[in-house]
Amino acid sequence: MAPHAIGIIGLGKIAQDQHLPNIRANPDFTLLAVSSQRGLSPEDAKYTFQDYREMLSGVPDLEAVAICTPPQVRHQIAREALLAGKSVLLEKPPAATLSELEDLKQLAEKVGKTIFTTWHAQYNKGVDETAKALAGQTVKLLRVTWKEDVRRWHPGQQWIWQAGGFGIFDPGINALSIVTRIMPQPVFIKRADLKFPANRDAPIAADLELSTGQPDAELTAAFDWRQTGLQSWNIDVETQAGSQLKLSQGGCRLEIDGRVVVDEKPSEYEGVYKRFDLLLSEGRSVVDVAPFRLVADAFMVGRRVQVEPFQDDAPARDGTYQAPST
Amino acid sequence: MAPHAIGIIGLGKIAQDQHLPNIRANPDFTLLAVSSQRGLSPEDAKYTFQDYREMLSGVPDLEAVAICTPPQVRHQIAREALLAGKSVLLEKPPAATLSELEDLKQLAEKVGKTIFTTWHAQYNKGVDETAKALAGQTVKLLRVTWKEDVRRWHPGQQWIWQAGGFGIFDPGINALSIVTRIMPQPVFIKRADLKFPANRDAPIAADLELSTGQPDAELTAAFDWRQTGLQSWNIDVETQAGSQLKLSQGGCRLEIDGRVVVDEKPSEYEGVYKRFDLLLSEGRSVVDVAPFRLVADAFMVGRRVQVEPFQDDAPARDGTYQAPST
Repeated sequence: MAPHAIGIIGLGKIAQDQHLPNIRANPDFTLLAVSSQRGLSPEDAKYTFQDYREMLSGVPDLEAVAICTPPQVRHQIAREALLAGKSVLLEKPPAATLSELEDLKQLAEKVGKTIFTTWHAQYNKGVDETAKALAGQTVKLLRVTWKEDVRRWHPGQQWIWQAGGFGIFDPGINALSIVTRIMPQPVFIKRADLKFPANRDAPIAADLELSTGQPDAELTAAFDWRQTGLQSWNIDVETQAGSQLKLSQGGCRLEIDGRVVVDEKPSEYEGVYKRFDLLLSEGRSVVDVAPFRLVADAFMVGRRVQVEPFQDDAPARDGTYQAPST
Repeated sequence: MAPHAIGIIGLGKIAQDQHLPNIRANPDFTLLAVSSQRGLSPEDAKYTFQDYREMLSGVPDLEAVAICTPPQVRHQIAREALLAGKSVLLEKPPAATLSELEDLKQLAEKVGKTIFTTWHAQYNKGVDETAKALAGQTVKLLRVTWKEDVRRWHPGQQWIWQAGGFGIFDPGINALSIVTRIMPQPVFIKRADLKFPANRDAPIAADLELSTGQPDAELTAAFDWRQTGLQSWNIDVETQAGSQLKLSQGGCRLEIDGRVVVDEKPSEYEGVYKRFDLLLSEGRSVVDVAPFRLVADAFMVGRRVQVEPFQDDAPARDGTYQAPST
């Protein structure tokens, strides 16, 4: 089968770090076009555009587009892409709201094109193995610890702090996308403490209490963007049968009962594009709403707690960070 | 066809005011059982229970149950009802979270029973007529005004003020259920200001900015629980073709271009049980997530604005309200 001719819309950090190299490394894809409001160089792709609309109408051979813009504009772009007859890969979160995602799902069905909500964290090797190990089990304990330094991962990004910018749920949704993938029963948000800095409209930390309906189980998630030094992307699970699973490094490493079962380097976007190739070839869609729905549920049932203001200082040259200037 | 043998779970205000009389007035239903943690009298139904589990296992002839408890416990009860082979009618909102509702939808499909998410406000006579008048039209202006006095409609109810208690979205979701029913295109939440009293964990008012993707359209909703005196449950619509629709009194009255088209008394629960009869007879389900999804979206994209504390004073004997004691 000829490789899929794909275009990228939105050439920010994630597109440059992950989508470009992974598309280029995958023989089942040809990067035919790129659209970006930033400047583009002719090496980026055969066709380059500043306006995605020109790309959608100007490259008839384009089979699919990967939408890597901020989430606020994804719905509009994805709609137009589907209506132009292109299949669509959506970076996470797939839209600004659940209603927008539902609309895209229905539109993709109507026009008969593939739509794919990517949750990249699901593709690290330890995740699948954890899901296999937990299948058919009853989970007694789930402890998600997702603590990282926002200054390191989102330097100067302002949209994440605006209302609708998700705040700590931008990384937290990665953890939740692993949880929905590995858990043998659906999980529900029972309680949430959402910690809003006094000067921001999005939470910097969140403590979630989850449930599968199992009365004696203890399921929690702790998300925090104020973690300097060692970063934590860990999920600990204990089953009723007594097994202990430790999924760490964002899903790259898995220990079961103290024995290392998986320890590999990240393979997230490699997995994303392998899956997209399959979906395109089979003409199928995957719209996995579950992680996004849990985030909306957390905002809906969550209690707002005000915490100290957050100052978004740039990192100093030596890699340390300036103290907040309050 | 024999009438459907139905039971009520949760005998609070809405069950007593609406479900009991409407079931009794509908010849297609027989009220066979009632379960309530409050005291029950033998006249309430042939079988009465304090524990809904005893009702589910103890009345084999029961075909369906109407779940009228607060939303926090609906998911658990509905699960057990479906697993006991009963069809389920859910008061609004149908669950505490969207993930719980999705779980019920899947379970109902699996066990082959009817599940029905009731949005009672959709059944007032003007709503259908508005939907018909707007079909195929482009909406240029939508202005939802839902302003009522919380002290009058929810005297002393504490759960509505807790995180997850929905606050102003408890009535607001009624307005949104009409909006999703009448609008010829899907609507999305673009921006929301959620006004939280300083001493409460749920909003007392909300201003929403909506969109259908139509760039020049103006779609807004203003919800407020601080309205004394005249209560407002109005939806004004203007189409691109120049038609003006005024849906008022919660959907009971409709004027089109100044002419009164509908002016009837409320018929909400009459319509709910007519529909439920049909669904049960045809073995079909209706899980309409749209209004609930818009509420979750509003919480997810909404900006929290702190407003003055709310004091929940009991009404004075003469029907007026005491000034806040602050």
